[in-house]
Amino acid sequence: MNALGRHILAEIYGCDSDILDNLELIEDIMVQSAIVSGAEIREVAFHKFNPQGVSGVVVISESHITIHTWPELGYAAVDVFTCGDDVNPWDACNYIAKMLRAQNMTATEVKRGVFEKPVKVVNY
Amino acid sequence: MNALGRHILAEIYGCDSDILDNLELIEDIMVQSAIVSGAEIREVAFHKFNPQGVSGVVVISESHITIHTWPELGYAAVDVFTCGDDVNPWDACNYIAKMLRAQNMTATEVKRGVFEKPVKVVNY
Repeated sequence: MNALGRHILAEIYGCDSDILDNLELIEDIMVQSAIVSGAEIREVAFHKFNPQGVSGVVVISESHITIHTWPELGYAAVDVFTCGDDVNPWDACNYIAKMLRAQNMTATEVKRGVFEKPVKVVNY
Repeated sequence: MNALGRHILAEIYGCDSDILDNLELIEDIMVQSAIVSGAEIREVAFHKFNPQGVSGVVVISESHITIHTWPELGYAAVDVFTCGDDVNPWDACNYIAKMLRAQNMTATEVKRGVFEKPVKVVNY
């Protein structure tokens, strides 16, 4: 299987609610997660909701890192989608979970952009 | 099962390569997809790569819509993540595929932010 990218969908529970509701902190954590993983940052866009919650994205050369937070639930939905072999999306994902002081995380990795290669037939 | 959101991961193949490589068109299609589905736009960030390809995101009140394009492969990776019951993410997804003149699309819907509700025990 030949995939262009790896996409982690992470459900992060038991986070620090004050961090989840702080726009500047969340933006800093997301930008740092890109840097820690070796990704190249292209665009940054974050938004604070009223009464609570933060959404934001870091567009990287390798694809994107996004977050949506529910401070009242201690929950964050995080996506780390990276293309190529130079960046390991788990580096960014684990950094984010640690910085949110998460108690639990469930995460799934999905392959994106799967193109079939010609199959070589082998005679036994 | 009680989920905060629905997240569609769409693999869109056989798209018009000229559209996939046009920053203004892609941004317009993505913004329109949010409007068509009834989502509320909060932030918009797009980037054109050299020699080819466009990445971008529309942050909506309901979460996000993202795209990454490979004009040389006629391929786009699209995510539509919406929370709440007011917006149907498939409306945005199908609109994008149509506007990219896609020949094929495979898409998966994933529930995000699943919280267990107390179960009421019923005596029969």
